[in-house]
Amino acid sequence: MFIEINRNKSVPIKKQLYDALTLKFLNGEVEGGVKMPSTRRLAEDLNLSRNTVLEIYEQLIAEGYLYAARGSGTFVAENIAKRNVRKEIKDKTEKKNSSVSGISLVAGTPDLENFPVKAWEKALHSLLLRNETVLFDYGSYEGYQPLRESLCQYLANHKGIICESDQIIITSGAKDAMRILASALKPYFQSLLMESPCIDFIEGVFGYYSYRLLPCRVDNEGLVVDEIKEKTPSLIYTSPSHQFPLGGTLSVSRRQQLVTIADEFNHVILEDDYDSEFRYKGAPLNSIFQLNPERVIHIGTFSKTLSPSLRIGYMVVPYHFLKNIRGYFERIGNFPCTLNQAVMNELIINGSYEKHVYKMTRLYKAKMSLLVKRLREIFGKRIIINGEYSGLHLAVIFKDVLFSELDLPCFRSGGVEVELLSCYDYGKKISETNILIIGFDILGLKRSRMPYVVCFLSLRN
Amino acid sequence: MFIEINRNKSVPIKKQLYDALTLKFLNGEVEGGVKMPSTRRLAEDLNLSRNTVLEIYEQLIAEGYLYAARGSGTFVAENIAKRNVRKEIKDKTEKKNSSVSGISLVAGTPDLENFPVKAWEKALHSLLLRNETVLFDYGSYEGYQPLRESLCQYLANHKGIICESDQIIITSGAKDAMRILASALKPYFQSLLMESPCIDFIEGVFGYYSYRLLPCRVDNEGLVVDEIKEKTPSLIYTSPSHQFPLGGTLSVSRRQQLVTIADEFNHVILEDDYDSEFRYKGAPLNSIFQLNPERVIHIGTFSKTLSPSLRIGYMVVPYHFLKNIRGYFERIGNFPCTLNQAVMNELIINGSYEKHVYKMTRLYKAKMSLLVKRLREIFGKRIIINGEYSGLHLAVIFKDVLFSELDLPCFRSGGVEVELLSCYDYGKKISETNILIIGFDILGLKRSRMPYVVCFLSLRN
Repeated sequence: MFIEINRNKSVPIKKQLYDALTLKFLNGEVEGGVKMPSTRRLAEDLNLSRNTVLEIYEQLIAEGYLYAARGSGTFVAENIAKRNVRKEIKDKTEKKNSSVSGISLVAGTPDLENFPVKAWEKALHSLLLRNETVLFDYGSYEGYQPLRESLCQYLANHKGIICESDQIIITSGAKDAMRILASALKPYFQSLLMESPCIDFIEGVFGYYSYRLLPCRVDNEGLVVDEIKEKTPSLIYTSPSHQFPLGGTLSVSRRQQLVTIADEFNHVILEDDYDSEFRYKGAPLNSIFQLNPERVIHIGTFSKTLSPSLRIGYMVVPYHFLKNIRGYFERIGNFPCTLNQAVMNELIINGSYEKHVYKMTRLYKAKMSLLVKRLREIFGKRIIINGEYSGLHLAVIFKDVLFSELDLPCFRSGGVEVELLSCYDYGKKISETNILIIGFDILGLKRSRMPYVVCFLSLRN
Repeated sequence: MFIEINRNKSVPIKKQLYDALTLKFLNGEVEGGVKMPSTRRLAEDLNLSRNTVLEIYEQLIAEGYLYAARGSGTFVAENIAKRNVRKEIKDKTEKKNSSVSGISLVAGTPDLENFPVKAWEKALHSLLLRNETVLFDYGSYEGYQPLRESLCQYLANHKGIICESDQIIITSGAKDAMRILASALKPYFQSLLMESPCIDFIEGVFGYYSYRLLPCRVDNEGLVVDEIKEKTPSLIYTSPSHQFPLGGTLSVSRRQQLVTIADEFNHVILEDDYDSEFRYKGAPLNSIFQLNPERVIHIGTFSKTLSPSLRIGYMVVPYHFLKNIRGYFERIGNFPCTLNQAVMNELIINGSYEKHVYKMTRLYKAKMSLLVKRLREIFGKRIIINGEYSGLHLAVIFKDVLFSELDLPCFRSGGVEVELLSCYDYGKKISETNILIIGFDILGLKRSRMPYVVCFLSLRN
């Protein structure tokens, strides 16, 4: 691949490389589907450091110019040669299955193209070779014991959670954990203090089990703890590491304050830790569970780090609630797939899981940085961005625009699915908002197409 | 392998072959772990038909003398050379982990050693090659659409159930289906007419959701329909093809009568069809669903035909209840694993599932026939055997013995886990019973060991 890098230019080398490559893609000189030279090879050819080339490749992947095919290299994405993007979006929406070709900026689903297929198949195969009937059996309601044990170790190493494996219960994801808790703890608690705005299923699940729902205000640092005045023992739902949807991280002082309040009024905290594995800036904070292991139920999931399809999550439960949960299981059951749990266990033990999380953290960080950069380029000081320190979504606060539900069909007809803050408003009372919730893993596409997203955002400018 | 078959003897050739082989195993002439000649080879050597040899091999596998290792042939089981079996059972129970080496005759789990590992891996691999992100995504609450469609076809072909794919909801097994139904139908029904005795989770699940439980008598032909007098619209739980635990098959006339009663009093029937795929004698009966698709919810599962670990079952729901169930899902969710559903779909489409069911039916039939034969040899006319036409368990009715819970530890100390009818008695009111429920897939062992089971039964003689 012929690229000229001029070390005497004032333009940084990285930018020269980036510009030269994108120019080749956009003018069609290098066509879609073409395999790119390896980073090592290109670095040698151009006499650059391999890290420089790696960084640019990662950026181009995040932007959708390139894509990495598992095990076979990096390729140029199809259909990126320059043309009228606006027109194309319009054309696309006129097709019947516009949702298929549309872009989803809805938060909540991880990058599914990077599911570690090989590691999964390898772990499954090695398990099946062992020929243990336990893999095909009903399994225990509390979960596959080896997974509970490896997870126990993992939580200690990666989240600083010190617990026993028998405090860990495997569930079919975080929402399923909430269902189990809502049902099994109903004899003790009649009300739920919930973050507002909040992930929508909390209202669904706890409302279904007839909890009195008490919304609590959230600001850009998460739950506003000192406004909690409820004195009846209640459950408190919080997503402290990356509040959903506003993106705030609950500070240490608020965490301590929350635990103190819980102690005083016999509240129990449900700590929904759905995406803290992806942290981009600053050190991770201690989990609330660790601050008071008697009053906190910690809920985690592999839906964001690996895949929601697997339906595996977990909760870490104080001993005095285990009996209740077991009693519930003995009547109703608990249904995570044993085989998947066993594969998950293998991935944790053989290090593939950690490696995958590390890889995805780098990739998400690149995508997120790019999105933030483009948003800044377009909107400058007209927006405040919240939630970029971790996780898989941003809250973008516009200083001078109000959006309403009426804008959604308009976005959709532009080929973009996006959510307003009001989508997560308890009781859906707010009709207008200046906040967009943007998942920066771009879905609904075989490959991410950042250029379209930027175009979409420009349309609203 | 030198075996003498004498065609002039009055002893049937099959019996001669059986006796000659078992003698070699029991006197240690052919040791455990030795690979047996292929059926084709042995048939040629002895100048017998291959079917004769096949049949004897199957019987020996069912009896635990031989075992088939996937893809590599048939082998002689370890530790079957003759010795004092009673003593060995005693020795075993003195070991700490006696449950590991014990024999479970508890009904409810299929043969897990024959899980179709290769077909599963192959289907998974072919799916993963397609690289579709939908496999790793949350999926729809109603289930993976292609599976719903292939299942729709399968149900028409194999169970005579004519429905649309949107009436099929994939669940995490039959118990999970019951949880969903108990919860979603509560606004319409306050009571459940249930078979008594009955699979235990029905009491657990419907009791949990505060249904009034109304036990209905069961005889050896299933639910005694004409004793149903309830006039308030209720749910009616029945397992018509192989009543659990008594083993009866609901006759056509009772089925029709049941549907008539349901029509008259606005009852809705929950048809739990957990093992009708395994039918050994007689033609299968039409499902109750087919008799009245407006009043029956048909519940099926892959837990018995394939593996309970996968947590995949399904229900076929009349249109007018779909809205309720969807409403429930929108609040609470539904969590079968997308990836497993997709593999299941592949297995149905490529015929592996049907092939597996066929293979297992033959194997179970051999095991069941053998158990029945041995029971007859030992107990003669002292017992009545019920349920041998289909499914995975028998009810053995003793004319002259009463068992109680107190016998269970005694069985256990003999190394055998077995269940009394009273285990399934609603409210556990009956203290003595003359009926044992025997699963004829023998669990808790790497290989089935029919000789021990017979020994156990002899102990009670």
